[in-house]
Amino acid sequence: MLRLRPLAAAGRLPPAGLRLGPLRPAAGLARPGAARPPRPAAPVGDRRLVSRQVRAVTAAAAEGGSGDGGRGPALKTPKGTRDHLPAHMALRDRLFATVVACFKRHGAAAIDTPALELRETLMGKYGDNSKLIYELQDQGGELLALRYDLTVPFARYLAMNKITNIKRYHIAKVYRRDNPATTRGRYREFYQCDFDIAGQFDPMIPDAECLKIVHEILSDLQLGDFLIKVNDRRILNGVFAVCGVPESKFITTCSTVDKLDKMPWEDVRSEMVGEKGLSPEAADRIGEYVQLHGGLDLIEQLLQDPKLSQNKPAKEGLGDMKLLFEYLTLFGITGKISFDLSLARGLDYYTGVIFEAVLLQQENDHVEESVGVGSVAGGGRYDGLVGMFDPKGRKVPCVGVSIGIERIFSIMEQRVKASGEKVRTTETQVLVATPQKHLLGARLKLISELWDAGIKAEMLYKKDPKLLKQLQYCEDTGIPLVAIIGEQELTDGVVKLRVVTTREEVNIPREKLADEIRRRLEPCSLSVQSCLTL
Amino acid sequence: MLRLRPLAAAGRLPPAGLRLGPLRPAAGLARPGAARPPRPAAPVGDRRLVSRQVRAVTAAAAEGGSGDGGRGPALKTPKGTRDHLPAHMALRDRLFATVVACFKRHGAAAIDTPALELRETLMGKYGDNSKLIYELQDQGGELLALRYDLTVPFARYLAMNKITNIKRYHIAKVYRRDNPATTRGRYREFYQCDFDIAGQFDPMIPDAECLKIVHEILSDLQLGDFLIKVNDRRILNGVFAVCGVPESKFITTCSTVDKLDKMPWEDVRSEMVGEKGLSPEAADRIGEYVQLHGGLDLIEQLLQDPKLSQNKPAKEGLGDMKLLFEYLTLFGITGKISFDLSLARGLDYYTGVIFEAVLLQQENDHVEESVGVGSVAGGGRYDGLVGMFDPKGRKVPCVGVSIGIERIFSIMEQRVKASGEKVRTTETQVLVATPQKHLLGARLKLISELWDAGIKAEMLYKKDPKLLKQLQYCEDTGIPLVAIIGEQELTDGVVKLRVVTTREEVNIPREKLADEIRRRLEPCSLSVQSCLTL
Repeated sequence: MLRLRPLAAAGRLPPAGLRLGPLRPAAGLARPGAARPPRPAAPVGDRRLVSRQVRAVTAAAAEGGSGDGGRGPALKTPKGTRDHLPAHMALRDRLFATVVACFKRHGAAAIDTPALELRETLMGKYGDNSKLIYELQDQGGELLALRYDLTVPFARYLAMNKITNIKRYHIAKVYRRDNPATTRGRYREFYQCDFDIAGQFDPMIPDAECLKIVHEILSDLQLGDFLIKVNDRRILNGVFAVCGVPESKFITTCSTVDKLDKMPWEDVRSEMVGEKGLSPEAADRIGEYVQLHGGLDLIEQLLQDPKLSQNKPAKEGLGDMKLLFEYLTLFGITGKISFDLSLARGLDYYTGVIFEAVLLQQENDHVEESVGVGSVAGGGRYDGLVGMFDPKGRKVPCVGVSIGIERIFSIMEQRVKASGEKVRTTETQVLVATPQKHLLGARLKLISELWDAGIKAEMLYKKDPKLLKQLQYCEDTGIPLVAIIGEQELTDGVVKLRVVTTREEVNIPREKLADEIRRRLEPCSLSVQSCLTL
Repeated sequence: MLRLRPLAAAGRLPPAGLRLGPLRPAAGLARPGAARPPRPAAPVGDRRLVSRQVRAVTAAAAEGGSGDGGRGPALKTPKGTRDHLPAHMALRDRLFATVVACFKRHGAAAIDTPALELRETLMGKYGDNSKLIYELQDQGGELLALRYDLTVPFARYLAMNKITNIKRYHIAKVYRRDNPATTRGRYREFYQCDFDIAGQFDPMIPDAECLKIVHEILSDLQLGDFLIKVNDRRILNGVFAVCGVPESKFITTCSTVDKLDKMPWEDVRSEMVGEKGLSPEAADRIGEYVQLHGGLDLIEQLLQDPKLSQNKPAKEGLGDMKLLFEYLTLFGITGKISFDLSLARGLDYYTGVIFEAVLLQQENDHVEESVGVGSVAGGGRYDGLVGMFDPKGRKVPCVGVSIGIERIFSIMEQRVKASGEKVRTTETQVLVATPQKHLLGARLKLISELWDAGIKAEMLYKKDPKLLKQLQYCEDTGIPLVAIIGEQELTDGVVKLRVVTTREEVNIPREKLADEIRRRLEPCSLSVQSCLTL
């Protein structure tokens, strides 16, 4: 089925099939070098009712850089950065584990590169966004900067280590002197989770795998319904050519098309004509193409398009797009894929397929609304970047995907908050407790035995804590079991094992305690069947 | 038993018991703010035989910052930093997993702080080493710097978030504009693995746990024999006082004593007298104390020492040291603990117990030798640091340990290299292969089924790869199984599962393939018993 998306400015409702209008990302994706646009000016409207003071406070909070400034030396983190408290970290760890499991399932190896790069490595790779790069002070020696993404360092890594063939993932922090919008999960220091396939391969097989990965991760995370938009730079360039745009204006026109998810067509059109100097006729012709989105049928239709089918890059792009859809059909994931001619992505270095995943808003889903649904993954093919680093200009074709982990984290954080779920921040299995005084030594000896047996155990750092305090600590921190050792237990060579939730108590021979704790807590030990499902 | 360590300069062999001489760390430990001394000038001697050219090359390599400079734009990482290739990362992941497992076993929660801090947060915390801090360029806005360790950010974090009680670990990169010595695992960007306990507790219980953690991690990693040296800043200060050092010179004298593991007593003595202005008599008296090392017996002896027992801090320190040894006895680890009065540690902020773990050289252990054995963990009590950040100066007592992960990694890396062990860089369980042409679709469909079933699977990104090439890929990368799907298998609804090492092949009904792969590869599924040992 072929769908025509009405232009947003016309004010008509888009067709029910692929309603993307209200779901467009409020800001660009934290993708390698994705040109994140400056924050739009805050809407005023109802806000006028809010007092200036409140607005000022909110604005300060939205800028990020949490902390208690003002008095004495500033007690805060830098603007746009934050501390991660244990509850954050526990949630983040879960999220990273899901993403890493998927990357490993697809045979990727891990690599790491320094957070610092030579300035010259980064310069000239991000267009206008180079001004957002953090530079280090010249303290003698090399001129350095903090990495802006993981893709340019990856290209440098491939060229420097003469690697022509690798499937790798890289999860690390990157740095951008951007306008932070911390409520939407947009920070100046943030994680990127990248998966890339480098090497000369048969067309569209690695590209299809990248889309499969996005599909798997978004499904595994249960973030709700989503859509993966796909396009190809060669098709876009073909469209520009047949619409009468001179080749010198392809890149700049592309960056204007990229704004279609943040502004209505009318504004995009006037930027094309006013700022970019396109003819009104060319802009109108572009407008007809970029509202198209659909599936295989749209590809077939464009392959028959009298003008586009005469353009070599467009024809190649459409041929590859057809192949891609064949592979995605075999993967069984075309239901969530949309070939969308408005997708441009901000970066210069893409040379082929590009894609971006967005979450679709659900009925009564207030959580997403407050976070600002948007792009949660993106990527594409960049066949020329490594060649920019290789002394002999040798190219290594690459395609990759970046998971917008910070935005996903913001959504999950809000969901956990809304659900009232208490995230455990430790994995402690048992608290070693004593019911009488003068038993610190007994506790230290027992906890040491448990640690040596691999049990996760804690005790209170007090000589003579009250039993009630010890039990309360378990309630507060979610420790499921208490190993109580008193004078009677010492005499009998047993330990009283108490289940915190049921208050059930049972004496266990001391030498069997570790096994008993494991038996009760580790799902793997219950049965072979449960092992299989781990 | 009480041991007198002969002064190194005397040229006599130290007693067999605790031979530490040759094992002293060649450089300071990568511990929070540990004052890493500047590299000593390279010894000349035999080196004179080596041509200048070779020496220049070696020096450049030792400086770190790997890469291929020289021609065109420099293709390299910044000085003192490096890329981590997949084989590195696989080994690092193993190492981190062991350390994190121990931290979690002790009930620690994870936190994270930004790699960037306000400059004013870091300034005035590291003494002379402040000059090693990487500062960011003033690009408008706040003045920033890269963190130098994880301890000062932790103190800032506690004060800012008003946390008075936490047991946390933090594994992250820190940055020092130091002289790199990359062969010894000393870089300008490196990981720290810190475990700290903050809060007001009964004496020496958390301190003892920190030592237990060092003991567990070094045992788990099987790095060979090790020794944990323990001392107390209060005891050292007491020693200085009773030897006639004025209080104003305690800190500077302490930093001279700290050099005892890198230079002989004679040199330390002349620095005390020459540079620090101590009287020769005071220096000699200090010399008598700082050569002492032993266990409970030494503590008892010093508690009877006519001068030291009259000094309040020393008496408190010795009392706590006795308590510490009691607890360590209950933990069963005193065999590897030495109360060592020469241990000073470089940092100003320690206020009580300090400790440092060193690897002991073994006979025929050439590996360690080439890496340069040394300090692999260290830490201590710092009760005043948080108060420096709190607006009201409220103190939060802290004790913590830092695992010298980079040095340990260097040792493990050399061992793996020496053993010839091939480290797998991926976890792929099965390669999906086809024996005939025109079966790309069949491969894509099957691999998709396996991914969806949670199996780690790869395929070659070629339309029609030769079977031999596919099998060779498994040999090269260590993939244990091959799922072969040809025309016959498609007709029969089976998949031929091949074991790479034995070349055994068996047909498996397609719907049972994922389970069969799991059954063959995942130890957890074999029996309940094996589950328990995981």
